[in-house]
Amino acid sequence: MSIAQLPFIKAHATENDFVVIVDVNDELDLDAGQVAYLCNRRAGIGGDGLLRVVRSGETGRWFMDYRNADGSIAEMCGNGIRAFAHVLVAEELEASREFEVDTRAGVKTIRVLDADGTQATVSVGMGPVAVTGVSTARMGEQQFAGIGVDVGNPHLACVIPGLSAEELEGMEFSQPEFDHEFFPEGVNVEVLTELSGATGDTGGEVHMRVWERGVGETRSCGTGTVAAAQAALADAGIEDGEVTVNVPGGAVRVQLAGGEATMTGPSTIVARGQLAGALA
Amino acid sequence: MSIAQLPFIKAHATENDFVVIVDVNDELDLDAGQVAYLCNRRAGIGGDGLLRVVRSGETGRWFMDYRNADGSIAEMCGNGIRAFAHVLVAEELEASREFEVDTRAGVKTIRVLDADGTQATVSVGMGPVAVTGVSTARMGEQQFAGIGVDVGNPHLACVIPGLSAEELEGMEFSQPEFDHEFFPEGVNVEVLTELSGATGDTGGEVHMRVWERGVGETRSCGTGTVAAAQAALADAGIEDGEVTVNVPGGAVRVQLAGGEATMTGPSTIVARGQLAGALA
Repeated sequence: MSIAQLPFIKAHATENDFVVIVDVNDELDLDAGQVAYLCNRRAGIGGDGLLRVVRSGETGRWFMDYRNADGSIAEMCGNGIRAFAHVLVAEELEASREFEVDTRAGVKTIRVLDADGTQATVSVGMGPVAVTGVSTARMGEQQFAGIGVDVGNPHLACVIPGLSAEELEGMEFSQPEFDHEFFPEGVNVEVLTELSGATGDTGGEVHMRVWERGVGETRSCGTGTVAAAQAALADAGIEDGEVTVNVPGGAVRVQLAGGEATMTGPSTIVARGQLAGALA
Repeated sequence: MSIAQLPFIKAHATENDFVVIVDVNDELDLDAGQVAYLCNRRAGIGGDGLLRVVRSGETGRWFMDYRNADGSIAEMCGNGIRAFAHVLVAEELEASREFEVDTRAGVKTIRVLDADGTQATVSVGMGPVAVTGVSTARMGEQQFAGIGVDVGNPHLACVIPGLSAEELEGMEFSQPEFDHEFFPEGVNVEVLTELSGATGDTGGEVHMRVWERGVGETRSCGTGTVAAAQAALADAGIEDGEVTVNVPGGAVRVQLAGGEATMTGPSTIVARGQLAGALA
Protein backbone atom coordinates (compact mmCIF):
# COMPACT_ATOMS: atom_id res chain seq x y z
CA MET A 1 0.00 0.00 0.00
CA SER A 2 1.38 3.40 -0.94
CA ILE A 3 0.54 6.15 1.55
CA ALA A 4 0.75 9.77 0.35
CA GLN A 5 2.35 12.41 2.60
CA LEU A 6 1.91 10.48 5.84
CA PRO A 7 1.65 12.79 8.87
CA PHE A 8 3.95 11.95 11.78
CA ILE A 9 4.98 13.21 15.20
CA LYS A 10 8.55 12.99 16.50
CA ALA A 11 8.67 12.51 20.28
CA HIS A 12 11.12 11.30 22.89
CA ALA A 13 10.95 10.13 26.49
CA THR A 14 14.30 10.56 28.27
CA GLU A 15 15.88 10.58 24.78
CA ASN A 16 14.41 7.24 23.80
CA ASP A 17 12.90 8.57 20.57
CA PHE A 18 9.98 7.55 18.41
CA VAL A 19 8.20 8.22 15.16
CA VAL A 20 4.52 8.36 16.22
CA ILE A 21 1.82 7.66 13.63
CA VAL A 22 -1.77 8.50 14.65
CA ASP A 23 -4.02 5.91 13.03
CA VAL A 24 -7.11 5.89 15.25
CA ASN A 25 -9.19 3.70 12.94
CA ASP A 26 -6.41 1.16 12.29
CA GLU A 27 -6.25 1.85 8.56
CA LEU A 28 -2.47 1.71 8.06
CA ASP A 29 -1.02 -1.74 7.72
CA LEU A 30 2.64 -0.66 7.97
CA ASP A 31 4.95 -3.48 6.91
CA ALA A 32 8.44 -4.04 8.32
CA GLY A 33 10.11 -2.26 5.41
CA GLN A 34 7.95 0.84 5.83
CA VAL A 35 8.65 0.98 9.57
CA ALA A 36 12.39 0.50 8.98
CA TYR A 37 12.33 3.34 6.44
CA LEU A 38 10.51 5.71 8.82
CA CYS A 39 12.98 4.88 11.63
CA ASN A 40 16.07 5.16 9.38
CA ARG A 41 17.96 8.14 10.77
CA ARG A 42 19.63 9.16 7.50
CA ALA A 43 17.27 8.06 4.72
CA GLY A 44 14.00 8.53 6.70
CA ILE A 45 12.74 10.39 9.78
CA GLY A 46 14.71 8.50 12.42
CA GLY A 47 13.79 6.89 15.72
CA ASP A 48 14.61 4.09 18.15
CA GLY A 49 11.18 2.72 17.27
CA LEU A 50 7.73 3.50 15.89
CA LEU A 51 4.52 3.91 17.87
CA ARG A 52 1.23 3.56 16.00
CA VAL A 53 -1.76 4.99 17.91
CA VAL A 54 -4.82 2.82 17.30
CA ARG A 55 -8.26 2.59 18.94
CA SER A 56 -8.93 -1.12 19.40
CA GLY A 57 -12.31 -2.19 18.02
CA GLU A 58 -12.34 -5.23 20.32
CA THR A 59 -11.59 -3.69 23.71
CA GLY A 60 -12.50 -0.03 23.08
CA ARG A 61 -9.10 0.86 24.64
CA TRP A 62 -6.13 2.48 22.94
CA PHE A 63 -3.68 -0.02 21.49
CA MET A 64 0.06 0.76 21.34
CA ASP A 65 1.39 -0.89 18.17
CA TYR A 66 5.08 -0.67 19.03
CA ARG A 67 7.75 -1.64 16.49
CA ASN A 68 11.50 -1.79 16.71
CA ALA A 69 13.56 0.36 14.34
CA ASP A 70 14.19 -2.67 12.10
CA GLY A 71 10.42 -3.07 11.65
CA SER A 72 10.05 -6.12 13.88
CA ILE A 73 7.14 -6.39 16.36
CA ALA A 74 7.92 -5.32 19.94
CA GLU A 75 5.94 -5.97 23.08
CA MET A 76 6.17 -2.99 25.38
CA CYS A 77 8.36 0.01 26.08
CA GLY A 78 8.15 1.91 29.36
CA ASN A 79 9.49 5.09 27.72
CA GLY A 80 7.46 4.70 24.55
CA ILE A 81 4.17 4.41 26.40
CA ARG A 82 4.77 7.84 28.01
CA ALA A 83 5.19 9.38 24.55
CA PHE A 84 2.14 7.42 23.38
CA ALA A 85 -0.02 8.78 26.24
CA HIS A 86 1.36 12.30 25.72
CA VAL A 87 0.34 12.25 22.04
CA LEU A 88 -3.17 11.02 22.97
CA VAL A 89 -3.67 14.01 25.27
CA ALA A 90 -1.80 16.62 23.17
CA GLU A 91 -3.74 15.68 20.04
CA GLU A 92 -7.00 15.76 22.04
CA LEU A 93 -7.75 12.14 21.21
CA GLU A 94 -8.21 11.28 24.90
CA ALA A 95 -10.10 13.60 27.27
CA SER A 96 -9.38 11.65 30.47
CA ARG A 97 -6.05 11.86 32.34
CA GLU A 98 -6.34 8.28 33.66
CA PHE A 99 -6.88 5.48 31.18
CA GLU A 100 -5.73 2.05 30.15
CA VAL A 101 -3.66 1.14 27.11
CA ASP A 102 -3.52 -2.27 25.47
CA THR A 103 0.01 -3.42 24.67
CA ARG A 104 1.33 -6.78 23.46
CA ALA A 105 2.50 -7.28 27.07
CA GLY A 106 -0.98 -6.72 28.53
CA VAL A 107 -3.08 -3.78 29.69
CA LYS A 108 -1.14 -0.87 31.23
CA THR A 109 -2.60 1.80 33.50
CA ILE A 110 -1.68 5.39 32.63
CA ARG A 111 -1.94 8.62 34.58
CA VAL A 112 -1.03 11.86 32.80
CA LEU A 113 0.06 14.25 35.57
CA ASP A 114 0.51 17.24 33.29
CA ALA A 115 0.66 17.74 29.52
CA ASP A 116 0.73 20.47 26.91
CA GLY A 117 1.62 20.42 23.22
CA THR A 118 5.31 19.83 23.87
CA GLN A 119 5.90 18.51 27.42
CA ALA A 120 4.20 15.97 29.67
CA THR A 121 4.75 13.99 32.84
CA VAL A 122 3.25 10.52 32.69
CA SER A 123 2.92 7.69 35.22
CA VAL A 124 2.80 4.08 34.01
CA GLY A 125 1.96 0.95 35.95
CA MET A 126 4.85 -1.34 35.00
CA GLY A 127 3.44 -4.49 36.66
CA PRO A 128 5.22 -7.06 38.83
CA VAL A 129 8.93 -6.93 39.64
CA ALA A 130 10.70 -10.04 40.89
CA VAL A 131 14.24 -10.47 42.23
CA THR A 132 15.59 -13.69 40.73
CA GLY A 133 18.92 -14.01 42.57
CA VAL A 134 22.48 -12.73 42.45
CA SER A 135 24.93 -12.91 39.57
CA THR A 136 27.95 -11.14 38.08
CA ALA A 137 28.96 -9.53 34.83
CA ARG A 138 32.23 -8.39 33.30
CA MET A 139 32.89 -5.43 31.00
CA GLY A 140 36.48 -5.50 29.78
CA GLU A 141 38.62 -5.40 32.95
CA GLN A 142 35.72 -4.53 35.25
CA GLN A 143 33.80 -7.14 37.23
CA PHE A 144 30.37 -6.31 38.67
CA ALA A 145 28.11 -8.11 41.16
CA GLY A 146 24.40 -7.44 41.01
CA ILE A 147 20.91 -8.83 41.43
CA GLY A 148 18.81 -10.43 38.74
CA VAL A 149 15.50 -8.60 38.32
CA ASP A 150 12.61 -9.74 36.17
CA VAL A 151 10.46 -6.82 34.90
CA GLY A 152 8.86 -8.90 32.15
CA ASN A 153 12.36 -8.97 30.66
CA PRO A 154 15.63 -9.98 32.36
CA HIS A 155 17.98 -7.51 34.04
CA LEU A 156 21.18 -7.63 36.04
CA ALA A 157 21.31 -4.44 38.13
CA CYS A 158 24.73 -3.83 39.71
CA VAL A 159 25.13 -1.31 42.55
CA ILE A 160 28.80 -0.29 42.76
CA PRO A 161 29.76 0.69 46.34
CA GLY A 162 31.33 4.14 46.53
CA LEU A 163 30.91 4.90 42.80
CA SER A 164 30.28 8.61 42.06
CA ALA A 165 28.05 9.93 39.27
CA GLU A 166 31.15 11.40 37.59
CA GLU A 167 33.04 8.09 37.76
CA LEU A 168 30.02 6.31 36.28
CA GLU A 169 29.89 8.84 33.44
CA GLY A 170 33.58 8.29 32.64
CA MET A 171 33.43 4.48 32.83
CA GLU A 172 34.37 2.40 29.76
CA PHE A 173 31.19 0.65 28.62
CA SER A 174 31.22 -2.41 26.38
CA GLN A 175 29.31 -5.62 25.65
CA PRO A 176 29.06 -7.38 29.04
CA GLU A 177 29.99 -11.00 29.64
CA PHE A 178 27.39 -12.68 31.87
CA ASP A 179 26.30 -16.09 33.21
CA HIS A 180 24.40 -17.73 30.35
CA GLU A 181 22.95 -20.40 32.66
CA PHE A 182 21.45 -17.71 34.89
CA PHE A 183 20.30 -15.61 31.90
CA PRO A 184 19.57 -18.09 29.09
CA GLU A 185 17.73 -15.43 27.03
CA GLY A 186 20.46 -12.82 27.53
CA VAL A 187 20.24 -9.90 29.90
CA ASN A 188 20.13 -6.10 30.11
CA VAL A 189 22.88 -4.86 32.42
CA GLU A 190 22.52 -1.76 34.61
CA VAL A 191 25.48 -0.23 36.44
CA LEU A 192 24.50 2.24 39.15
CA THR A 193 25.56 4.29 42.13
CA GLU A 194 24.39 3.53 45.67
CA LEU A 195 21.12 5.07 46.84
CA SER A 196 21.69 8.57 48.18
CA GLY A 197 19.35 10.82 50.13
CA ALA A 198 17.03 8.00 51.16
CA THR A 199 14.87 8.77 54.17
CA GLY A 200 12.70 5.85 55.18
CA ASP A 201 10.26 4.86 52.43
CA THR A 202 10.57 8.16 50.53
CA GLY A 203 13.62 6.73 48.76
CA GLY A 204 16.39 8.77 47.22
CA GLU A 205 18.26 8.84 43.96
CA VAL A 206 20.76 6.89 41.88
CA HIS A 207 22.70 7.42 38.65
CA MET A 208 22.59 4.59 36.14
CA ARG A 209 23.93 3.50 32.77
CA VAL A 210 22.47 0.59 30.83
CA TRP A 211 23.62 -1.88 28.20
CA GLU A 212 20.51 -3.16 26.42
CA ARG A 213 20.47 -6.74 25.20
CA GLY A 214 20.89 -6.79 21.41
CA VAL A 215 21.18 -2.99 21.19
CA GLY A 216 24.18 -1.68 23.13
CA GLU A 217 24.35 1.28 25.44
CA THR A 218 21.25 3.49 25.28
CA ARG A 219 20.30 6.89 26.69
CA SER A 220 17.51 5.29 28.74
CA CYS A 221 15.70 1.97 29.32
CA GLY A 222 12.32 2.01 31.07
CA THR A 223 12.41 -1.48 32.56
CA GLY A 224 16.09 -0.95 33.35
CA THR A 225 15.25 1.99 35.60
CA VAL A 226 12.77 -0.24 37.47
CA ALA A 227 15.42 -2.94 37.93
CA ALA A 228 17.92 -0.29 39.08
CA ALA A 229 15.46 1.12 41.64
CA GLN A 230 14.78 -2.39 42.93
CA ALA A 231 18.51 -3.12 43.28
CA ALA A 232 19.25 0.24 44.94
CA LEU A 233 16.48 -0.24 47.52
CA ALA A 234 17.49 -3.85 48.20
CA ASP A 235 21.13 -2.77 48.59
CA ALA A 236 20.04 -0.14 51.14
CA GLY A 237 17.86 -2.66 53.01
CA ILE A 238 14.61 -0.91 52.06
CA GLU A 239 11.66 -3.00 50.84
CA ASP A 240 9.20 -0.52 49.31
CA GLY A 241 10.02 3.05 48.31
CA GLU A 242 10.60 5.61 45.61
CA VAL A 243 13.84 6.20 43.71
CA THR A 244 14.75 8.91 41.22
CA VAL A 245 16.82 7.18 38.56
CA ASN A 246 19.11 9.50 36.57
CA VAL A 247 19.99 8.13 33.13
CA PRO A 248 22.04 9.80 30.36
CA GLY A 249 18.78 10.94 28.68
CA GLY A 250 17.13 12.46 31.78
CA ALA A 251 15.50 11.22 34.97
CA VAL A 252 12.48 9.11 35.95
CA ARG A 253 10.95 8.28 39.32
CA VAL A 254 10.24 4.65 40.16
CA GLN A 255 7.86 3.64 42.95
CA LEU A 256 8.02 0.07 44.25
CA ALA A 257 5.21 -1.20 46.46
CA GLY A 258 4.09 -4.77 47.13
CA GLY A 259 6.15 -6.17 44.27
CA GLU A 260 4.64 -3.80 41.71
CA ALA A 261 6.37 -0.86 40.00
CA THR A 262 5.09 2.49 38.82
CA MET A 263 7.35 4.68 36.69
CA THR A 264 6.81 8.42 36.32
CA GLY A 265 8.76 10.45 33.80
CA PRO A 266 8.80 13.08 31.06
CA SER A 267 7.77 13.03 27.43
CA THR A 268 8.62 15.66 24.82
CA ILE A 269 6.90 16.19 21.47
CA VAL A 270 9.69 17.60 19.27
CA ALA A 271 8.03 18.17 15.91
CA ARG A 272 5.04 17.51 13.70
CA GLY A 273 5.46 16.88 10.01
CA GLN A 274 4.47 14.96 6.93
CA LEU A 275 6.45 12.87 4.50
CA ALA A 276 7.31 14.76 1.32
CA GLY A 277 6.44 11.84 -0.92
CA ALA A 278 4.57 8.56 -0.80
CA LEU A 279 5.51 5.79 1.63
CA ALA A 280 6.13 2.92 -0.79
CA MET B 1 16.21 34.55 20.46
CA SER B 2 13.27 32.16 20.91
CA ILE B 3 11.72 30.99 17.63
CA ALA B 4 8.18 29.57 17.72
CA GLN B 5 7.35 26.46 15.70
CA LEU B 6 10.26 26.77 13.30
CA PRO B 7 9.48 25.13 9.93
CA PHE B 8 12.11 22.70 8.65
CA ILE B 9 12.80 20.30 5.80
CA LYS B 10 14.59 16.99 6.26
CA ALA B 11 16.64 16.02 3.20
CA HIS B 12 19.49 13.70 2.33
CA ALA B 13 21.98 13.34 -0.50
CA THR B 14 23.37 9.77 -0.72
CA GLU B 15 22.32 9.40 2.94
CA ASN B 16 24.33 12.38 4.11
CA ASP B 17 21.36 14.01 5.86
CA PHE B 18 20.47 17.57 6.75
CA VAL B 19 18.00 19.72 8.60
CA VAL B 20 17.25 22.49 6.10
CA ILE B 21 15.97 25.86 7.36
CA VAL B 22 14.62 28.27 4.74
CA ASP B 23 15.50 31.78 5.89
CA VAL B 24 15.54 33.80 2.66
CA ASN B 25 15.83 37.18 4.38
CA ASP B 26 18.53 36.09 6.84
CA GLU B 27 16.41 36.70 9.93
CA LEU B 28 17.42 33.66 12.00
CA ASP B 29 20.65 34.02 13.89
CA LEU B 30 20.90 30.36 14.94
CA ASP B 31 23.53 29.89 17.62
CA ALA B 32 25.65 26.74 18.04
CA GLY B 33 23.35 25.37 20.77
CA GLN B 34 20.26 25.75 18.61
CA VAL B 35 21.95 24.04 15.65
CA ALA B 36 23.19 21.21 17.88
CA TYR B 37 19.65 20.75 19.23
CA LEU B 38 18.11 20.62 15.75
CA CYS B 39 20.74 18.07 14.61
CA ASN B 40 20.44 15.95 17.79
CA ARG B 41 19.04 12.64 16.54
CA ARG B 42 17.24 11.70 19.78
CA ALA B 43 16.32 14.98 21.49
CA GLY B 44 15.82 17.00 18.26
CA ILE B 45 15.16 16.41 14.54
CA GLY B 46 18.47 14.79 13.65
CA GLY B 47 20.99 15.36 10.89
CA ASP B 48 24.66 15.17 9.93
CA GLY B 49 24.45 18.94 9.62
CA LEU B 50 22.21 21.96 9.10
CA LEU B 51 21.76 23.98 5.92
CA ARG B 52 20.31 27.46 6.22
CA VAL B 53 19.02 28.86 2.92
CA VAL B 54 19.73 32.59 2.75
CA ARG B 55 19.61 35.18 -0.05
CA SER B 56 22.79 37.22 0.29
CA GLY B 57 22.12 40.94 0.35
CA GLU B 58 25.68 41.65 -0.78
CA THR B 59 26.04 39.40 -3.82
CA GLY B 60 22.37 38.77 -4.69
CA ARG B 61 23.26 35.03 -4.83
CA TRP B 62 22.03 32.27 -2.56
CA PHE B 63 24.29 31.65 0.44
CA MET B 64 24.63 28.17 1.95
CA ASP B 65 25.08 28.65 5.69
CA TYR B 66 26.32 25.14 6.45
CA ARG B 67 26.88 23.99 10.05
CA ASN B 68 28.18 20.78 11.51
CA ALA B 69 25.93 18.75 13.82
CA ASP B 70 27.77 20.16 16.86
CA GLY B 71 26.82 23.68 15.75
CA SER B 72 30.27 24.70 14.54
CA ILE B 73 30.71 26.59 11.25
CA ALA B 74 31.52 24.46 8.21
CA GLU B 75 32.85 25.56 4.84
CA MET B 76 31.37 23.41 2.12
CA CYS B 77 29.72 20.04 1.60
CA GLY B 78 29.43 18.49 -1.86
CA ASN B 79 26.41 16.43 -0.77
CA GLY B 80 24.79 19.23 1.22
CA ILE B 81 24.87 21.64 -1.69
CA ARG B 82 22.80 19.19 -3.80
CA ALA B 83 20.12 19.12 -1.07
CA PHE B 84 20.42 22.93 -0.81
CA ALA B 85 19.83 23.38 -4.58
CA HIS B 86 16.99 20.83 -4.52
CA VAL B 87 15.17 22.74 -1.78
CA LEU B 88 15.59 26.04 -3.73
CA VAL B 89 13.86 24.52 -6.76
CA ALA B 90 11.29 22.37 -4.91
CA GLU B 91 10.19 25.32 -2.77
CA GLU B 92 10.01 27.53 -5.91
CA LEU B 93 12.55 29.96 -4.48
CA GLU B 94 14.71 29.69 -7.62
CA ALA B 95 13.19 29.62 -11.11
CA SER B 96 16.42 28.95 -13.00
CA ARG B 97 18.02 25.50 -13.26
CA GLU B 98 21.55 26.91 -13.50
CA PHE B 99 22.75 29.29 -10.82
CA GLU B 100 25.59 30.08 -8.48
CA VAL B 101 25.68 29.57 -4.71
CA ASP B 102 27.94 31.38 -2.28
CA THR B 103 29.62 29.08 0.23
CA ARG B 104 32.36 29.73 2.77
CA ALA B 105 34.67 27.92 0.30
CA GLY B 106 33.79 30.25 -2.59
CA VAL B 107 31.13 30.45 -5.31
CA LYS B 108 29.88 27.10 -6.60
CA THR B 109 28.14 26.56 -9.94
CA ILE B 110 24.96 24.45 -9.81
CA ARG B 111 22.95 22.74 -12.51
CA VAL B 112 19.67 21.06 -11.50
CA LEU B 113 19.14 18.32 -14.10
CA ASP B 114 15.73 17.27 -12.79
CA ALA B 115 13.74 18.00 -9.63
CA ASP B 116 10.32 17.48 -8.14
CA GLY B 117 9.05 17.79 -4.57
CA THR B 118 10.94 14.71 -3.38
CA GLN B 119 13.74 13.77 -5.80
CA ALA B 120 16.36 15.69 -7.75
CA THR B 121 19.57 15.19 -9.69
CA VAL B 122 22.04 18.01 -9.21
CA SER B 123 25.44 18.81 -10.74
CA VAL B 124 27.97 20.81 -8.73
CA GLY B 125 31.23 22.34 -9.89
CA MET B 126 33.64 21.12 -7.20
CA GLY B 127 36.61 23.23 -8.35
CA PRO B 128 40.26 22.23 -8.73
CA VAL B 129 41.59 18.77 -7.89
CA ALA B 130 45.31 18.25 -7.36
CA VAL B 131 47.31 15.04 -6.87
CA THR B 132 49.80 15.70 -4.09
CA GLY B 133 51.85 12.47 -4.18
CA VAL B 134 51.74 8.90 -2.95
CA SER B 135 51.38 7.69 0.63
CA THR B 136 50.13 4.76 2.68
CA ALA B 137 47.65 4.10 5.47
CA ARG B 138 47.01 1.23 7.87
CA MET B 139 43.70 0.04 9.28
CA GLY B 140 44.29 -2.67 11.88
CA GLU B 141 46.17 -5.44 10.02
CA GLN B 142 45.56 -3.95 6.58
CA GLN B 143 48.09 -1.76 4.78
CA PHE B 144 46.95 0.42 1.85
CA ALA B 145 48.88 2.44 -0.73
CA GLY B 146 47.17 5.37 -2.37
CA ILE B 147 47.50 8.83 -3.81
CA GLY B 148 47.10 12.07 -1.94
CA VAL B 149 44.40 14.24 -3.51
CA ASP B 150 43.60 17.82 -2.55
CA VAL B 151 39.94 18.74 -3.20
CA GLY B 152 40.06 21.78 -0.93
CA ASN B 153 40.54 19.23 1.86
CA PRO B 154 43.10 16.39 2.06
CA HIS B 155 42.37 12.84 0.92
CA LEU B 156 44.28 9.60 0.60
CA ALA B 157 42.48 7.52 -2.04
CA CYS B 158 43.61 3.89 -2.11
CA VAL B 159 42.77 1.66 -5.09
CA ILE B 160 43.07 -2.00 -4.01
CA PRO B 161 44.03 -4.25 -6.94
CA GLY B 162 41.62 -7.15 -7.42
CA LEU B 163 39.26 -6.07 -4.62
CA SER B 164 35.61 -6.92 -5.29
CA ALA B 165 32.63 -4.80 -4.20
CA GLU B 166 31.57 -7.63 -1.84
CA GLU B 167 35.04 -7.85 -0.27
CA LEU B 168 35.03 -4.08 0.22
CA GLU B 169 31.62 -4.29 1.91
CA GLY B 170 32.86 -6.99 4.31
CA MET B 171 36.14 -5.25 5.16
CA GLU B 172 36.90 -4.28 8.78
CA PHE B 173 36.98 -0.48 8.91
CA SER B 174 38.66 1.46 11.69
CA GLN B 175 40.55 4.68 12.42
CA PRO B 176 43.41 4.70 9.89
CA GLU B 177 47.04 5.33 10.78
CA PHE B 178 48.67 7.64 8.22
CA ASP B 179 51.82 9.68 7.56
CA HIS B 180 51.46 12.82 9.70
CA GLU B 181 54.29 14.57 7.83
CA PHE B 182 52.47 14.06 4.52
CA PHE B 183 49.09 14.99 6.02
CA PRO B 184 49.80 17.49 8.83
CA GLU B 185 46.10 18.47 9.07
CA GLY B 186 44.88 14.87 9.08
CA VAL B 187 43.33 13.10 6.12
CA ASN B 188 40.13 11.50 4.82
CA VAL B 189 40.87 7.95 3.66
CA GLU B 190 39.03 6.31 0.74
CA VAL B 191 39.37 2.60 0.00
CA LEU B 192 38.11 1.60 -3.44
CA THR B 193 37.94 -1.02 -6.12
CA GLU B 194 39.75 -0.68 -9.45
CA LEU B 195 37.96 1.11 -12.27
CA SER B 196 35.69 -1.28 -14.18
CA GLY B 197 33.88 -0.80 -17.47
CA ALA B 198 36.08 2.11 -18.55
CA THR B 199 36.03 2.80 -22.28
CA GLY B 200 38.31 5.67 -23.25
CA ASP B 201 37.27 8.92 -21.63
CA THR B 202 33.73 7.77 -20.78
CA GLY B 203 35.14 6.27 -17.58
CA GLY B 204 33.58 3.42 -15.66
CA GLU B 205 32.67 2.71 -12.07
CA VAL B 206 34.19 2.01 -8.68
CA HIS B 207 32.94 1.03 -5.21
CA MET B 208 34.27 3.08 -2.32
CA ARG B 209 34.17 3.32 1.46
CA VAL B 210 35.40 6.38 3.31
CA TRP B 211 36.74 7.20 6.76
CA GLU B 212 36.18 10.94 7.34
CA ARG B 213 38.71 12.87 9.39
CA GLY B 214 37.25 13.60 12.84
CA VAL B 215 33.99 11.76 12.07
CA GLY B 216 34.59 8.07 11.32
CA GLU B 217 33.07 5.98 8.56
CA THR B 218 30.20 7.73 6.77
CA ARG B 219 27.63 6.67 4.17
CA SER B 220 29.02 9.18 1.70
CA CYS B 221 31.58 12.00 1.36
CA GLY B 222 31.31 14.39 -1.59
CA THR B 223 34.95 15.43 -1.85
CA GLY B 224 35.91 11.80 -1.12
CA THR B 225 34.10 10.62 -4.25
CA VAL B 226 36.07 13.19 -6.28
CA ALA B 227 39.35 11.95 -4.77
CA ALA B 228 38.32 8.34 -5.47
CA ALA B 229 37.47 9.12 -9.09
CA GLN B 230 40.83 10.86 -9.52
CA ALA B 231 42.67 7.89 -8.02
CA ALA B 232 40.75 5.34 -10.10
CA LEU B 233 41.43 7.18 -13.35
CA ALA B 234 45.11 7.68 -12.49
CA ASP B 235 45.42 3.99 -11.59
CA ALA B 236 43.93 3.09 -14.99
CA GLY B 237 46.25 5.51 -16.82
CA ILE B 238 43.37 7.81 -17.86
CA GLU B 239 43.78 11.57 -17.48
CA ASP B 240 40.29 13.04 -17.90
CA GLY B 241 37.05 11.08 -17.69
CA GLU B 242 33.87 10.21 -15.84
CA VAL B 243 33.54 7.73 -13.00
CA THR B 244 30.42 6.47 -11.22
CA VAL B 245 31.38 6.19 -7.56
CA ASN B 246 29.22 3.80 -5.53
CA VAL B 247 29.19 4.58 -1.81
CA PRO B 248 27.18 2.89 0.97
CA GLY B 249 24.53 5.67 0.70
CA GLY B 250 24.07 5.56 -3.08
CA ALA B 251 26.01 6.59 -6.18
CA VAL B 252 27.33 9.81 -7.70
CA ARG B 253 29.03 10.54 -11.02
CA VAL B 254 32.29 12.46 -11.03
CA GLN B 255 33.64 14.15 -14.16
CA LEU B 256 37.29 15.21 -14.21
CA ALA B 257 38.49 17.53 -16.96
CA GLY B 258 41.50 19.85 -17.00
CA GLY B 259 42.09 19.51 -13.27
CA GLU B 260 38.51 20.50 -12.37
CA ALA B 261 35.79 18.22 -10.98
CA THR B 262 32.04 18.20 -11.47
CA MET B 263 29.94 15.91 -9.27
CA THR B 264 26.41 14.84 -10.24
CA GLY B 265 24.18 13.01 -7.81
CA PRO B 266 20.78 12.61 -6.19
CA SER B 267 18.98 14.54 -3.48
CA THR B 268 15.86 13.42 -1.61
CA ILE B 269 13.48 15.60 0.38
CA VAL B 270 12.15 13.23 3.06
CA ALA B 271 9.75 15.35 5.09
CA ARG B 272 8.49 18.82 5.88
CA GLY B 273 7.58 19.78 9.41
CA GLN B 274 7.62 22.33 12.17
CA LEU B 275 8.96 22.24 15.71
CA ALA B 276 6.24 21.55 18.28
CA GLY B 277 7.52 24.20 20.66
CA ALA B 278 9.83 27.18 20.67
CA LEU B 279 13.51 26.89 19.80
CA ALA B 280 15.13 28.28 22.93
